Amino acid sequence: MFDGLSAFPPTPADAQGHVQEKLLAALIGRIVATEADSVGLLGSTGGYAYLTPSERQRAVRVAVECLGGKRPLFVGVGALRTDDAQALAMDARKAGADGLLVAPMSYTPLTEEEVFQHMVAVAEAGELPLCIYNNPGTTKFTFSEDLIARLAKVPHIAAVKMPLPADGGFTGELARLRARLPQDFTIGYSGDWGAANALLAGCDAWFSVIAGLLPAPALALMRAAQARDEAEVRRIDARFRPLWALFQEFGSFRVMYAVADSLGLYSLAPPRPILPLSGEARARVEAALEALGAP
Amino acid sequence: MFDGLSAFPPTPADAQGHVQEKLLAALIGRIVATEADSVGLLGSTGGYAYLTPSERQRAVRVAVECLGGKRPLFVGVGALRTDDAQALAMDARKAGADGLLVAPMSYTPLTEEEVFQHMVAVAEAGELPLCIYNNPGTTKFTFSEDLIARLAKVPHIAAVKMPLPADGGFTGELARLRARLPQDFTIGYSGDWGAANALLAGCDAWFSVIAGLLPAPALALMRAAQARDEAEVRRIDARFRPLWALFQEFGSFRVMYAVADSLGLYSLAPPRPILPLSGEARARVEAALEALGAP
Repeated sequence: MFDGLSAFPPTPADAQGHVQEKLLAALIGRIVATEADSVGLLGSTGGYAYLTPSERQRAVRVAVECLGGKRPLFVGVGALRTDDAQALAMDARKAGADGLLVAPMSYTPLTEEEVFQHMVAVAEAGELPLCIYNNPGTTKFTFSEDLIARLAKVPHIAAVKMPLPADGGFTGELARLRARLPQDFTIGYSGDWGAANALLAGCDAWFSVIAGLLPAPALALMRAAQARDEAEVRRIDARFRPLWALFQEFGSFRVMYAVADSLGLYSLAPPRPILPLSGEARARVEAALEALGAP
Repeated sequence: MFDGLSAFPPTPADAQGHVQEKLLAALIGRIVATEADSVGLLGSTGGYAYLTPSERQRAVRVAVECLGGKRPLFVGVGALRTDDAQALAMDARKAGADGLLVAPMSYTPLTEEEVFQHMVAVAEAGELPLCIYNNPGTTKFTFSEDLIARLAKVPHIAAVKMPLPADGGFTGELARLRARLPQDFTIGYSGDWGAANALLAGCDAWFSVIAGLLPAPALALMRAAQARDEAEVRRIDARFRPLWALFQEFGSFRVMYAVADSLGLYSLAPPRPILPLSGEARARVEAALEALGAP
């Protein structure tokens, strides 16, 4: 259920953190219409860290209703406390989610054993296929290959969402992971600017931020990669490049608010303390979307 | 109000995150009895990140009642969202706190401008003397000297709690900060193992984790430093050294649970995913307390 293109929509919310149901439903509708392979709700760019459990639950209900079983839905259930993450996992299952995405949020830096036990506890509570969310940029915890291999033996744990390797070396990393993980374990990448290389190197999934708002060109890139059409992958990736540069420079969370505004989907500000893009950066988003030929 | 020895008590709570009022009151009582200069409630080792706003509010009420105005109380009001941090600041003031301690918790990595605006917003909402909590190890944000100087001009912002400089060079850092900050701005350090050197270099405050459970020897070190008795500072610091080694190796948050247990104050586990010390590490805590001659 984690393989292929997973589209990660933002979660439109007002300044007080109340999820805007109609806006979220519209985003999910766009994703379903383009036939992306799955929906990853409440990921980092989905702003889960800034929403209360009840707002997160509301977002899940909206997505389940909108998807109507047409595509698998997995839901980010990260929390600083293990019991809170377990409760979120149970909430997500009851609301109809098909899978879970678990990032080990941290305040006190965590040890490997702490993260192992945390993941096991959430997997047991959730009883749904679970994707390890290896996102050091936000959680400040890096999963070692040893820890991923250990977690892959735990019931329900079925996938890992990897960050882009620092040296860009996907082939070596994938070979090492494949050698240690069960054959049906999904290895996917996030960090949209590295997706083309990750897919061409043979990973199973692209956990895509941009597919949350622009599913069509992201899916075209994914299908070209699946057809092993490297020239087409490179061609589409090149059109995305100005947007990737903005993601890397300003963080995709900030940029996606500007993208939604430019596309006429909604005009909302990110949750403070996060500031919206302005001035030249904002103008560059317009230019990047033009380069892409969107909408 | 931030100068001198500030004792940071842990916040005893059960496995569900409910503050244990009597245990907290007992800790505050010990601190008042030794005449530490102030109490820093709900700091990082006070576990604020793992407690709900209502539990945090309850902890403040217990501390205010216990202190009875005998010592200033400042309260950690860190939160991922600016509006949540503002609400916590107003709650703390209404409950009788004398000051605030604000760490820019992060999930999405924050920019300098975001942190500046966040701090200003919390200062305005709180209307109490505010200490900047520069704690990169947990917040993943490092305050530049430029940003501290800019914030020092904001009404209510009156102090900074610095991490130990990576190169151990307190003198240069203090000189640079003093040159840019108002004369009555408090510059203090956390990281108990560097306190002796920080105090001897002339900082204004020691924001002390260990003083939360062992205020007497911490105060002895502070008073020796204030008397410029370097030999006595070194003597006391040497007795603390085995404990400092544990703080550095396992993190003071984990070690303090074991210290509380060894001292017979309470036997509680840290909030999961944080795991208690066990085996050899736990035994070393006993030995470290013996070396210190505690209780």
